[in-house]
Amino acid sequence: MLPCLCKFIIYYFKQFQEFTVSVFVEEDTIAAIATPVGEGGIAVIRISGPDALAFADKGFRGKAALSAVPSHTIHFGEFIGADGGVIDQVVAATFRAPHSYTGEETIELSCHGGLYVSKKILETVLDFGARLAGPGEFTRRAFLNGRIDLAQAEAVSDLIRARSEQSHKASMEQLEGKLSTRINSLREQLLKTSGLLELELDFSEEGLEFIDKTNIIKEIESVSSFVQSLVDSYRFGKVYREGVKVVIAGKPNVGKSSLLNCLLNENRAIVTDIPGTTRDVIEENIVIGGILFRLVDTAGIRESTDIVESEGIRRSAAEMETADVILRLADPTQVFDDADATLKESISLHSDHARVITIQTKSDLVNGVRIPNAVAISSLTGAGLGELRLQLTSAVTGHVGGDGVVLTNVRHRDICLKALRSLATAKESLLHNASNELVSLDLQAALISLGEIVGVVTSEDVLNNIFGSFCIGK
Amino acid sequence: MLPCLCKFIIYYFKQFQEFTVSVFVEEDTIAAIATPVGEGGIAVIRISGPDALAFADKGFRGKAALSAVPSHTIHFGEFIGADGGVIDQVVAATFRAPHSYTGEETIELSCHGGLYVSKKILETVLDFGARLAGPGEFTRRAFLNGRIDLAQAEAVSDLIRARSEQSHKASMEQLEGKLSTRINSLREQLLKTSGLLELELDFSEEGLEFIDKTNIIKEIESVSSFVQSLVDSYRFGKVYREGVKVVIAGKPNVGKSSLLNCLLNENRAIVTDIPGTTRDVIEENIVIGGILFRLVDTAGIRESTDIVESEGIRRSAAEMETADVILRLADPTQVFDDADATLKESISLHSDHARVITIQTKSDLVNGVRIPNAVAISSLTGAGLGELRLQLTSAVTGHVGGDGVVLTNVRHRDICLKALRSLATAKESLLHNASNELVSLDLQAALISLGEIVGVVTSEDVLNNIFGSFCIGK
Repeated sequence: MLPCLCKFIIYYFKQFQEFTVSVFVEEDTIAAIATPVGEGGIAVIRISGPDALAFADKGFRGKAALSAVPSHTIHFGEFIGADGGVIDQVVAATFRAPHSYTGEETIELSCHGGLYVSKKILETVLDFGARLAGPGEFTRRAFLNGRIDLAQAEAVSDLIRARSEQSHKASMEQLEGKLSTRINSLREQLLKTSGLLELELDFSEEGLEFIDKTNIIKEIESVSSFVQSLVDSYRFGKVYREGVKVVIAGKPNVGKSSLLNCLLNENRAIVTDIPGTTRDVIEENIVIGGILFRLVDTAGIRESTDIVESEGIRRSAAEMETADVILRLADPTQVFDDADATLKESISLHSDHARVITIQTKSDLVNGVRIPNAVAISSLTGAGLGELRLQLTSAVTGHVGGDGVVLTNVRHRDICLKALRSLATAKESLLHNASNELVSLDLQAALISLGEIVGVVTSEDVLNNIFGSFCIGK
Repeated sequence: MLPCLCKFIIYYFKQFQEFTVSVFVEEDTIAAIATPVGEGGIAVIRISGPDALAFADKGFRGKAALSAVPSHTIHFGEFIGADGGVIDQVVAATFRAPHSYTGEETIELSCHGGLYVSKKILETVLDFGARLAGPGEFTRRAFLNGRIDLAQAEAVSDLIRARSEQSHKASMEQLEGKLSTRINSLREQLLKTSGLLELELDFSEEGLEFIDKTNIIKEIESVSSFVQSLVDSYRFGKVYREGVKVVIAGKPNVGKSSLLNCLLNENRAIVTDIPGTTRDVIEENIVIGGILFRLVDTAGIRESTDIVESEGIRRSAAEMETADVILRLADPTQVFDDADATLKESISLHSDHARVITIQTKSDLVNGVRIPNAVAISSLTGAGLGELRLQLTSAVTGHVGGDGVVLTNVRHRDICLKALRSLATAKESLLHNASNELVSLDLQAALISLGEIVGVVTSEDVLNNIFGSFCIGK
């Protein structure tokens, strides 16, 4: 790989009140394998930047040079390595600037799938002078070139990671700009209000007062109320994005692994009659009603002299700390002992953040004995599983406020919380007849915060954070 | 998924001497995800068949319908699901028949990578009436439509699986038709010879003899000699395609795992001072001189009461049976005991098919003691590893005969052996002045055999066998 000589990053820092706007001009050409790693029919090597066509043409042998053909056309040819040998037959697709994903000159080379061939073509393109793209760098350039805003760029990563209907829907809506549109209209509303305040400020020496403070307060309340509904929606958004973590807790031999298997309809965990068989934490994913549930089977809660099993019990307690739902399994045929007391206490520590569902297991074995408010199930007959599935979905679904926009990203939630604080301070100042300057400053702060969601206001640290979690080739 | 109503397969069986030619007309439209499974920047859904454009247009919303745009062009749009919701933003590439991989109408939809989105688009296309493609079905259609011959189709699969420079080179040459050209010229040579024999047959009643039997024999010998060189080349071809299996054998604690780690430059196996640490067979791949070596570390050969370890020893003996190279490790500081004798005997059983390289380990610990003809190495200092690498490559490389065409496929080798037998019988008949009919029949048999390599003569069983081992989406 040649050293990357052609990289120039120019930063313009434009200071406007508290705004910091960074404009990046990327002048080098990047390349990466854009398809997942592995064996498949096709692999795609993506090249983007001012020299994309030139670098591709160094290896491409087709009817015409790629730099000589129109944008959005496809060309069959061979790709030649440094030793003059054919690496593969490829199909090259041209995307001329600005009509590409990144907004830059872009070439996509489809070759036969497989690791060796795709790596060899990529290495050759890097030898020609391209730089290996960093994680998310294509999408980063799409953002920097104004093809998409920051919230949309973040949605790309969420979309790729989507594992359920709900997570797909939320990220697709965000990619299509639903969140961005809402944020931008909130910002416009704030800009108008803050504009009025500043206008009055200009005429303050003449003692003119031509705005109604009550209306300004109403405007701020309206914006706050919507931002608050966004913050509230994060509860669902997190579920959409990451799924629901369900910890299955109970004494040894109460039927935890059997329940897991029953829900999964397969023998993922080894089920035996010997207490303490499950030593590692087992995690399995299932989708119920379009929502992803991450089921975690833990070691039975009990005192143990076996070191490996004790470690398992320690881990299961740790799993409960981050659970969204805890399934507390109880078997009424066993006596309530110290282990039950420990389990009850352990679960009660987490009832603030996790919904606890009590389950009476082995209902096929028990006649008449019922634990109050428990879902009675039988992993043997499947009885009660429908009711359990219903309780699982209802534990995490509910009414999504506002116009259905859901925050799925913790960064967005934190920004909204910050904006809410600024808006609250602004309202407070208005109520106490503080000067317009003071109120205006807080409104500006709220504007800046909301701008960070769509990326009109951003810093390189924020960008590195966001795009660093992308996969390479996106 | 709609049932596949539109599938008509018409077989024409044309009987010509022993030839069975099958012509397939596929009339349904197939679809599959063509990129590897996993998360990546891009996933590609490939649709091929008469309704490819119609099915794609049912979901695609862009500036124009895909059926209305020219071939080899790219179009941005949204792909809409059955519920009317946007599944993803896609880039559609059009390949109009016959200018596509399969020779049929083809659409490739690039969507954001990730399992959920790509599966959802595929499911939607299947709902529209496409059938899920079987393994290798796109390439099978490419073959049936005359885009490539059978040897080239087989090369596609090899190319995807290539893991070293040598395997890549061999499969690329085969894909480009090097083997096919050679086979076809051999067939032409045979056709000419057999034509002469048949011509003479037509005039046999007039008692005319206008061909020189010596020349016919020379022709047959020339073809045989080339077919034989192809058979011989399989020794290298197998190595190119599958890599070289190297079994590391030796007593417990002789330094097998240390050697493996040293060659790999990483700690793949757990190395301890306790004999018998390696219980499972560990396989690691390294490439030396463009050749893939599959290094297999086995449990130490020794009598053991430990059941798990005995199982390991049994497996190591099994591994030697299919080894290409056995590295026999010996530590001269240990006395030659029963275990050494067992090992020596065990290895001698495999010296017919595997090259045995004796290695004296821990050369840094020994002063003056040397095992004759052994490569002295030290995994600690790295001494002797260069020499070992050289011996490994020279064990499997050598002169490739003919014009450098290498057989990498056992199917091709078996066909060549069959053709050789027919050619030998033909020559025998000529030497014993048998009738032209008899000689001609054997030459036809050889012709048919060679035709099976490139697929001019084929059966559905053979095709199922070949394409069944492909990945889906190719």
